[in-house]
Amino acid sequence: MAENDSEITKYHAEEESGKSRARASRTHSYLESPTPSDREGNSSTQSSHRLLAYSDALLSIIATVMILPVAHTKLQDDEELKQSLQQLLATKIAVYLMTFLIVTVAWAAHIRLFQVIERIDDSLALLNLACMMLITFLPYTFSLMATFPENTLGILLFCTCVIVIGAIEAVIVVYGFNHPFLLNDHIQVSENQAFYKWHILKVISKVPILCMFAIIFSFIFSPMSYVLLAIVIFLPYISQSVRWCHSKATGRLEETNDSMLFYTYHPNEPLSKERVEAFSDGVYAIVATLLILDICEGNVPDPKEVQEIFGGSLVEALKEFGPEFLAYFGSFATVGLLWFVHHSLFLHVTKVTRLMGLLNTFSLAFVGGLPLAYQLTHEFARNSRNELEAIQISCVIIFFAGLFQLAIWVAALFGERSALHPYVRYAGRDHVFMLAKLALYPCVALGTFILTCVLSQFSAPIFHLMEIMVPCAFLLLRLLVRLGLTLLRLLLSPIWRAARRLREDEEPHRPLSEVET
Amino acid sequence: MAENDSEITKYHAEEESGKSRARASRTHSYLESPTPSDREGNSSTQSSHRLLAYSDALLSIIATVMILPVAHTKLQDDEELKQSLQQLLATKIAVYLMTFLIVTVAWAAHIRLFQVIERIDDSLALLNLACMMLITFLPYTFSLMATFPENTLGILLFCTCVIVIGAIEAVIVVYGFNHPFLLNDHIQVSENQAFYKWHILKVISKVPILCMFAIIFSFIFSPMSYVLLAIVIFLPYISQSVRWCHSKATGRLEETNDSMLFYTYHPNEPLSKERVEAFSDGVYAIVATLLILDICEGNVPDPKEVQEIFGGSLVEALKEFGPEFLAYFGSFATVGLLWFVHHSLFLHVTKVTRLMGLLNTFSLAFVGGLPLAYQLTHEFARNSRNELEAIQISCVIIFFAGLFQLAIWVAALFGERSALHPYVRYAGRDHVFMLAKLALYPCVALGTFILTCVLSQFSAPIFHLMEIMVPCAFLLLRLLVRLGLTLLRLLLSPIWRAARRLREDEEPHRPLSEVET
Repeated sequence: MAENDSEITKYHAEEESGKSRARASRTHSYLESPTPSDREGNSSTQSSHRLLAYSDALLSIIATVMILPVAHTKLQDDEELKQSLQQLLATKIAVYLMTFLIVTVAWAAHIRLFQVIERIDDSLALLNLACMMLITFLPYTFSLMATFPENTLGILLFCTCVIVIGAIEAVIVVYGFNHPFLLNDHIQVSENQAFYKWHILKVISKVPILCMFAIIFSFIFSPMSYVLLAIVIFLPYISQSVRWCHSKATGRLEETNDSMLFYTYHPNEPLSKERVEAFSDGVYAIVATLLILDICEGNVPDPKEVQEIFGGSLVEALKEFGPEFLAYFGSFATVGLLWFVHHSLFLHVTKVTRLMGLLNTFSLAFVGGLPLAYQLTHEFARNSRNELEAIQISCVIIFFAGLFQLAIWVAALFGERSALHPYVRYAGRDHVFMLAKLALYPCVALGTFILTCVLSQFSAPIFHLMEIMVPCAFLLLRLLVRLGLTLLRLLLSPIWRAARRLREDEEPHRPLSEVET
Repeated sequence: MAENDSEITKYHAEEESGKSRARASRTHSYLESPTPSDREGNSSTQSSHRLLAYSDALLSIIATVMILPVAHTKLQDDEELKQSLQQLLATKIAVYLMTFLIVTVAWAAHIRLFQVIERIDDSLALLNLACMMLITFLPYTFSLMATFPENTLGILLFCTCVIVIGAIEAVIVVYGFNHPFLLNDHIQVSENQAFYKWHILKVISKVPILCMFAIIFSFIFSPMSYVLLAIVIFLPYISQSVRWCHSKATGRLEETNDSMLFYTYHPNEPLSKERVEAFSDGVYAIVATLLILDICEGNVPDPKEVQEIFGGSLVEALKEFGPEFLAYFGSFATVGLLWFVHHSLFLHVTKVTRLMGLLNTFSLAFVGGLPLAYQLTHEFARNSRNELEAIQISCVIIFFAGLFQLAIWVAALFGERSALHPYVRYAGRDHVFMLAKLALYPCVALGTFILTCVLSQFSAPIFHLMEIMVPCAFLLLRLLVRLGLTLLRLLLSPIWRAARRLREDEEPHRPLSEVET
C-alpha cells in the first residue's frame, strides 16, 4: 500500500512538474491536490441515488414487519377460525395496517424532502441514517400503544419519535439551504430561496406540533391525543381524496402554481416514480420470502425426532412439512406474479401522482397479508369449515391486491394525459394487453371465490388448480389476448362496416381542416 | 373506463383520418395500432433494470436468512459461552457462511447472464421469477444437508434445484439468442453469435453437470458427492485467487480477449457495479432491521404479565427489555455506518472486478453476523466471562467487516488504474480522507479489543463508549483529517524543503520533453 502510494505520488508530481506552478504543487501535491468536485464547491457532494435506495429498502422492510406477529399467531384447529380471526382482526391485523400506513406517511415525507435536496454530502447521509433509525422504531412504539391503550407511555414514545424525526428533517432542510449546491436546480436558481425554506419548514413542522399537543393531552385527556394522532395519519389522505373528488365533480382542474409543486399535498403532485418502484420492490421481495424465512428457521426436522418418530426416514418426516412448502411456493408465485403485473404497469406509467401512490400503498398492504393467508389454507383439516374460510380469505386478499393495481391504471387513465405513455393511452393492442394482465388476478380470485362457495367440498383442489393455472395463463396471455382480439374483430367487422357505410352516407365529404381541429 | 376508452378511440381515429390510410386505419385502429416499440421488433421489449433490482433484493434477503437460526439459538447464562459457541460454530455458523457463499455464487452467475441479455420481455421475466423461486429454496436444502449429512435426500434436493436452475438459465440464453434484439449491443452486432451462444451454454452447463455426477455418486459413495459440491462452490474462487496471485507474481497482465470478457472467470472480469451496490444495500438493510424484527414480534409485554409481575407499571416491564433496545440501536448504528463507508467507497470506484466482488462478499458475510454479536453482548450478567467474550467477538466481527472493505480499496488501488476515479487514485486530500473512513472501524475495533483484554472489568463501559464515539467520529472525520494533514504538513515542510533544495542542486535543468515521457 505504502509503496503504491509513493509511486502514485511520484507519477502525480512528474505530471505536474511541467506546469508553471511546478514548485508549489510539488510541495503540496500529497496534501492539497484539487479535485474536480472541489472546484464545484465541496469535494464531498454526492448524488443521493444510493442513499435513497437504501432508505427505501429499510422502509419497505419496516412497513411489512408487523405482519410477522399476525403470521406467528398459532391457531388451534379445534376452535373455529371465525372466532380466532375476530380476535386477530381486532388487534394484530389493525396494528399491521396502521403501521403500514404510518411508515408510508413517513416515506412520502422522506420522498418530498429529497425532491428538494437532490445532492447529499457526508453529514446529510449520517443525519438521514439517524432519521431512518427512529422511523424503524415507530412500529414498536405503535404496537405498544395498541397493546396498552390506557397507558400513556406508548403515546409518549411514539410522539417523541415523531418529534425527533421532524427535528432531524428540519435540520436537513436548514443544512440544505445553507449549502445551496445541494438543492434541486429549480430552487437553486430561484430568487426567493428564503420563502421556499420557510414554506417547507412550516409544512414539516405541522406533524411534530400536532404530536406535541398529543403529548400534552395525553396527561390531561388521553382520548383527545388519539384523535390528534388519527388526524396526523389520515389528514393528508382525507384532504387529498376530498380535493380530488371536488376537482372531478366541479370539472375544473385546480391551477397548481408550478413552482410550488412540492409540499402542497395536492393529489396530482408527482411522487418520484423511481422511489415508488424501489419501495414496492422492497415490499414484494420481503413478502415473497417471508415464508421461506420461517421454513428455514423452523422446519428442519430434529435428527433425534426423525430417529424416534419416523424410524429414521427423512422423507416421512419432511412429508409432515409438505403443506408449508406448498404454501411457500404458492405465495412466492402469487407475490412474484403480482410484482410482474406491477412491473408491467409501471413500464407504461410516466408520472406517479399522490393518488396513484396511495392506491399503490393499499395494494401493497394487501400483498403483505398474502403469505399469512396462504399459510392458513394448509393449516387445517381437509374439507373443514376452517379450510374453506381460509381459502376464501386468500381469494379476497388476492382480489383486493389486484383490484388496487387496476385502480392505479384507471387513475392514470382518468388523470392527466401525461401520466401514461401515449402508445398505451390510446386504445391500441398494448392497451388491451395491459388491461388483460391487470384484470387476470381479480377475475381469477373472484371466480375461485364463487366456485368455492358453490362447490365447497372441492375448495382445496379448486384453489390448487388456480395456483397452477395462473402462471401458465400469464405465459400464454399475449397469445390469448391476440386470439380474443382476432375473434372480436371477426365478429364486429360486419357491424362496423355497416356503421361506417351509414356514417359515410351521412357525411360524405368532411373537410380536412375541420378534422384537424 | 369504457367512456374514457371510446373517447380515446375517437381521438385516435380523428388523428389518423387525415392520412391516406384513413379508411383502413379506422377499421383496425382499436385492434392493431402500431406502437413505437412494435417497430423496434417486439412490443413487449423492456429494460431489464427493475427486474434485476427485484432479483437483487430477493437474493440479498435469502443470502442472510440463515443467520436467523443462529441468532435464535438460546444460550443459557449458566453454561459457559465458549462451549455453546463451539456447538454453534460447528453447525449453524458454518451453514450460514456456506449459504451466503452459495447464494452469492448463484447471484454472480445471474449477473453474468444478464450482462449478455440486456433487454427482457414478459416470458423472460416469468422465467427469471421461476429461477428466483428455486434459488430461494437453496438455503433450506443446504441446511437439510448439514443436519443430515449421512442422508442422501438433502444432497438430492440441492442438486436437483441446481440442475433445474441451470436448465432455466440455458432456456433463457437460447431464448435470448433466438430474439437477438434482447442481447447486449456488442453480441447483437457480432458476426459469430452462434459461437457466443455455445460458449455461454458450455459455461452455464458446467455446474449442473457436476451436480449430476454428485447425484450419481450420492448413491455409490456419498463423500465423493460432497467433494464435488465443494468444487462447485469454491472452484471459481480458488482458480480466481490462484490466477490473480500468478499474474501478480509473474508481473505480466494476462491478455484478456476483450470480446470474451464475459463468462471467463477472470479475476479482472468486470461485475456490474450497479448490481453489486443493489445487492449490498439489500444485505445491509436486512441486517440493520433483523433485531427490530425480533423486538416487534417478541418484546411487546403481555398485559396480564405487566399487571401481575410489575404491578401494572409498563416502564418497569420495558426496563426488562432495555438490553435488547440497546443492542438494536448499537447494531443499527454500526451496520448503518458500515453501509455509509461502503457507499463512500463505491462513489469512488468506477469498475468492480470479480476480486473486489469476492472481498465485498466476505465483508457482507461478517456484517450479517453483527446483530447476533450485539445481541450476545447484552444477554449475560455484568462482568461475567461470557459478556467479555461476547464483546470481543463483536469487536472481531466489526474488525473483519471493516478490514474487507479496506481490502476492496486496496484491490482497487493495486488493480487496474481504471477501477478508481483519478482524483482519489492520486494521493490527494480525498484519498487520505477515504483511507481514514475505511480505517476508522478496523482501528476502533482493534483498539476496543485490546482495551477489553487489558481492562476486562470495564469491558461493557468501554464497548458502549465505542458505540457512542464512532458516529461522532464520522461526523467530525473531515475536520479531524484536515487537522491531521495540517499538522503533518507543518511538521514535514522543513524536511521537504531541505530535500527539494538538495534535488534542485543535483538536477537544475531537466528538459521538458523528458518529463513528459
